[in-house]
Amino acid sequence: MTVSSAAPESSVRIPFGQLRDTLALIFERHGTSRAVAAILADNCASAERDGASSHGVFRIPGYLSTLASGWADGRAQPQVQDVAPGCIAVDARNGFAQPALAAARDLLVAKARANGIALLAIRDSHHFAALWPDVEPLAEQEGLVALALVNSMACVVPHGGTQALFGTNPIAFAAPCADGAPLVFDLATSSMAHGDVQIAAREGRLLPESCGVDARGQPTREPRAVLDGGSLLPFGGHKGSALSMMVELLAAALTGGSFSFGFDWSGHPGAQTPRTGELIIAIDPEKTAGQAFAQRCGELVQAMADAGQPRRPGQQRHHQRADSLTRGVPLAQSTWNELQRLAGGPA
Amino acid sequence: MTVSSAAPESSVRIPFGQLRDTLALIFERHGTSRAVAAILADNCASAERDGASSHGVFRIPGYLSTLASGWADGRAQPQVQDVAPGCIAVDARNGFAQPALAAARDLLVAKARANGIALLAIRDSHHFAALWPDVEPLAEQEGLVALALVNSMACVVPHGGTQALFGTNPIAFAAPCADGAPLVFDLATSSMAHGDVQIAAREGRLLPESCGVDARGQPTREPRAVLDGGSLLPFGGHKGSALSMMVELLAAALTGGSFSFGFDWSGHPGAQTPRTGELIIAIDPEKTAGQAFAQRCGELVQAMADAGQPRRPGQQRHHQRADSLTRGVPLAQSTWNELQRLAGGPA
Repeated sequence: MTVSSAAPESSVRIPFGQLRDTLALIFERHGTSRAVAAILADNCASAERDGASSHGVFRIPGYLSTLASGWADGRAQPQVQDVAPGCIAVDARNGFAQPALAAARDLLVAKARANGIALLAIRDSHHFAALWPDVEPLAEQEGLVALALVNSMACVVPHGGTQALFGTNPIAFAAPCADGAPLVFDLATSSMAHGDVQIAAREGRLLPESCGVDARGQPTREPRAVLDGGSLLPFGGHKGSALSMMVELLAAALTGGSFSFGFDWSGHPGAQTPRTGELIIAIDPEKTAGQAFAQRCGELVQAMADAGQPRRPGQQRHHQRADSLTRGVPLAQSTWNELQRLAGGPA
Repeated sequence: MTVSSAAPESSVRIPFGQLRDTLALIFERHGTSRAVAAILADNCASAERDGASSHGVFRIPGYLSTLASGWADGRAQPQVQDVAPGCIAVDARNGFAQPALAAARDLLVAKARANGIALLAIRDSHHFAALWPDVEPLAEQEGLVALALVNSMACVVPHGGTQALFGTNPIAFAAPCADGAPLVFDLATSSMAHGDVQIAAREGRLLPESCGVDARGQPTREPRAVLDGGSLLPFGGHKGSALSMMVELLAAALTGGSFSFGFDWSGHPGAQTPRTGELIIAIDPEKTAGQAFAQRCGELVQAMADAGQPRRPGQQRHHQRADSLTRGVPLAQSTWNELQRLAGGPA
């Protein structure tokens, strides 16, 4: 099965709500509860809407393969535990991380407002999506500053090492900004994405320096050597490696989730989603900065533009979002046909 | 005046306590209160003890020049405000950040234990030191996980930009670890620390590739060209730049401190310390991970070693610390003479 993003020829524009509803039908038909289907569909459709194609409908086959394998539980009911005035622990019970976050979201917001800062620790969860959707609404809808960290599956060698240990371990951040859209970034602590290595291999291009190692742990610029038993390196040398280590500690050790090298899915052929943990920290800026925080965020954005930074973090996504909401989300016709088939509808 | 670190020839070993006491005398003789002198001296001597030369006695001339200029207040009494169950705000009143942290430390620890997570926002503060001393004791003595961010002075160009805007904006992290020493890192989000550029200039060494630009925005490996109107680059391209932006938002906008480009010291020739803000987050791992956190931290350290990582973050500092505590802190004889002269003692 191939589900690919929009190609120049033969593409269609699908209204966001229709895409989301179609994805929800797909999830529900392939083993999730209706509630989980709605959350994952909104997440996945939002990534496609924003042009984040690597985490949009491209992920559907991986989700379905995982559900078919019995590795993740699409019907899991997350258990929310109020463990301290500023802390929530959620046992995702081998379900997806997004429904676990949704189950605890209101309590997290309330705790952040009451205490000034609050922590949400999700364990035994699968995160197969972009990370910015986990923080952006907290800034946009609640005016909170939010930080999220999630570990994944061993594919990154610690700095100076020879074997994969860390996941791509992204860090996402969102802050309310006076000019409207919150300031958001979502960055993998790995040098590059696995998908980009595959594309380089297909196109016969060498990788940039310091991106990967071969199966013996030796530096290589050959994409095939990375794909055939090799590994990625952290971004930014020992600094990115230290940050990736921090993600393991905060997203896994602190939550009670597995390290990226700590789970065994060998009994579930077809499984693609890492079974780990996620940490979210939410801060109410009014406690220390009063009403000024979003204003100062706007000042920094202006200063970055004045310093010649060509675009602010998240700007490209917001442009694509506006276009998708006006004209529909662009998809290849063949992709849309396939999605409809998976949903049990026409085509 | 030259205060340099240990040279191979004509070096001495000074007991840690003697070095600390000498530095305290220097601070007090040059305009700080006794309380501030004790805190800054311990911080500075500890960095020298650990081999962190760029933040050790090398910093003394900058401190004294700043105090002489009237830019920072060495006698400031930090004002601690309990703003929410999980939040403390400290107005450092144009004094140094370390006394502000010291004034709020016990309350921060108590709030972290009570709520699971707590935030300390320091504003109107000068931070001219290494950042790891702000977090390491919280892990080592209190068993907390701690994260610190501080912004500094505009010397880093945002990714894709042309003018310096961000500071070196370090992030420090500490976590308790079952095998004894906490796991600690302290990384500038710039390609290198400003102190290391100064040391390279003094020693006549070229900088590594892709670290800095000259006053015209052209890449350069000449440390003097970076110091004389040039700028550093963020580490790791757009990702390091995004993290540096996050540090500005959390250490300045959230605390009420100045951005790295936001203060004007032109009326204080000789001033060298940035007048900005600092954010510290402390987490009690027992709330979500029970007793297991330090154990799992130890497991990760072991896994990193098994994956071939030659040393854990902070290991070199700890080796140097042990050596300094046994044999004395190594200093050039000329440096020790100069420190004694500044303290008003022999030589």
